[in-house]
Amino acid sequence: MRSVVLLSGGLDSATVLAQARDLGRDCFALTIDYGQRHSAEIDAAKAVAHALGAVEHRIVHIDYGQFGGSALTDATIDVPTGNAQTDSIPVTYVPARNTVMLAIALGWAEVLNAEEIFIGVNAVDYSGYPDCRPEFVSAFEKLAQLATKAGVEGSGIRVRAPLVEMSKAEIIQLGTQLDVNYALTVSCYQAASDGRACGDCDACNLRRAGFAATQCADPTRYS
Amino acid sequence: MRSVVLLSGGLDSATVLAQARDLGRDCFALTIDYGQRHSAEIDAAKAVAHALGAVEHRIVHIDYGQFGGSALTDATIDVPTGNAQTDSIPVTYVPARNTVMLAIALGWAEVLNAEEIFIGVNAVDYSGYPDCRPEFVSAFEKLAQLATKAGVEGSGIRVRAPLVEMSKAEIIQLGTQLDVNYALTVSCYQAASDGRACGDCDACNLRRAGFAATQCADPTRYS
Repeated sequence: MRSVVLLSGGLDSATVLAQARDLGRDCFALTIDYGQRHSAEIDAAKAVAHALGAVEHRIVHIDYGQFGGSALTDATIDVPTGNAQTDSIPVTYVPARNTVMLAIALGWAEVLNAEEIFIGVNAVDYSGYPDCRPEFVSAFEKLAQLATKAGVEGSGIRVRAPLVEMSKAEIIQLGTQLDVNYALTVSCYQAASDGRACGDCDACNLRRAGFAATQCADPTRYS
Repeated sequence: MRSVVLLSGGLDSATVLAQARDLGRDCFALTIDYGQRHSAEIDAAKAVAHALGAVEHRIVHIDYGQFGGSALTDATIDVPTGNAQTDSIPVTYVPARNTVMLAIALGWAEVLNAEEIFIGVNAVDYSGYPDCRPEFVSAFEKLAQLATKAGVEGSGIRVRAPLVEMSKAEIIQLGTQLDVNYALTVSCYQAASDGRACGDCDACNLRRAGFAATQCADPTRYS
C-alpha cells in the first residue's frame, strides 16, 4: 500500500516514517518548505527519508512566509526561550500550517493513488497548537473524503496520526525500537545551518525532557 | 470587516469580489499560482483586484505542478475540447486544489484577523469537481474552526461561497449589476499569454453558454 508521509526533519515525523515502513507501506515522503527561518530541518528531512527507505522524497516550496504572523517565519518576531509555556497559543504557531501541509499531501496522495497520509502531530508533549489535536485530524479526514476524486469515486484517503496521544518519551522509545537514528533529526526552532540546536526554545525543551524520561541517550548536537 | 477573497482571474471569483465589496467588506485578494499552464489568469487577477478596489492583492507561489495528474498543470495531458462532458471527474481536475487554496487563505486570514474567506466555487454550471460542492465548503469551515487560533480563542473564520447554488447566467447577471468588467477576466483552460480564449474547452463552453442565456454582451476575446 502506498502512503504519503509528511516529514519535517524533526523527531516526531521521523518516528512516523519508521512506523509506516514497519507496517510495510511504500512511503512517499513529503517536506513542505514554507519559509522556515532555517534550512537545517529540510536537510535533516532528506537524510531521514534516505535512511528510512522512502520510495521517493519531494520538497514543495510555498512562499507562505510572506504573510508573517509567526516567530518561525517572521524574522522580526523573536523565538521565546527559557520556560516560555503559557496557557495561550505561542508566537511560534504558524497560522494554518498543518492544514496547508495536509492539503498538499492530499493532492500528491491523489496523484499517487495512495490510500493514506501519515502526519506526526502530537497533542501531549506539544506547544499547544490547535492543529495538532485529534479533532483537527479527524475533521481533515472528513474533508478529504468530500474534497477528492478518491473520496467520491473510490474508498478515499485516510489520515493517520499515530503519535497523537503519545508522550515524547513514548515516541522516542518507539522510534529507538524501530532503529530511527535521532542524530539525523532537528527539532530546534532556531537551529544553526549545520543543524546544531539552541537548547533553550520550547522545541528543544520538549525534546530534551523526552530523552531524559527514557533510557535512550540524547544524540542532539547543541550549539 | 476584513475578508480574504480567493481570486483566480476568472469570471466567478471576480463576481465574488464584487459581492464582498458590495457588502462593505475590506477585501484582501489572494491568488494562488500553483503551476497553471498559462499566466494570463494571474495577470487577469491583478487587473480585477485593482478594478474592484481590493485593499491588497497577494500572489502565493507553490510548486504544486510537480505532482502532475491534471491537464491544467501537466503539459503531457491534453485539455479536452468540444463536447467533452462525461459523468466522471474530468482530467482538468487539479487534485485537492481548492483544499490547498482555502488552507492558504485560512493562514492569511488568521494573520489579518479577517473574519471571512470568500471563494467562488459553483456546483451548478461547473466541471464536476468534488471540491466545488456545498458539502465540501461546509466541511472546510468546520475544519477551520478546529485548525486555528481564531477558532479556538475567538469566534472563528467563516467560509462564504455565495455562488455555489447559482447558474452561470445568474452569476453574470449579478456581476453585471455590480459593474464587474468581465472583459478583464479569463476563464479559458488554455488561454493565450495575452488572455485570448480558445473558445472550445469546457470552461469556454460554460462561459459562452452563460452569456448566451443572459441579455449581457459577451466581452470574451477569442483566438
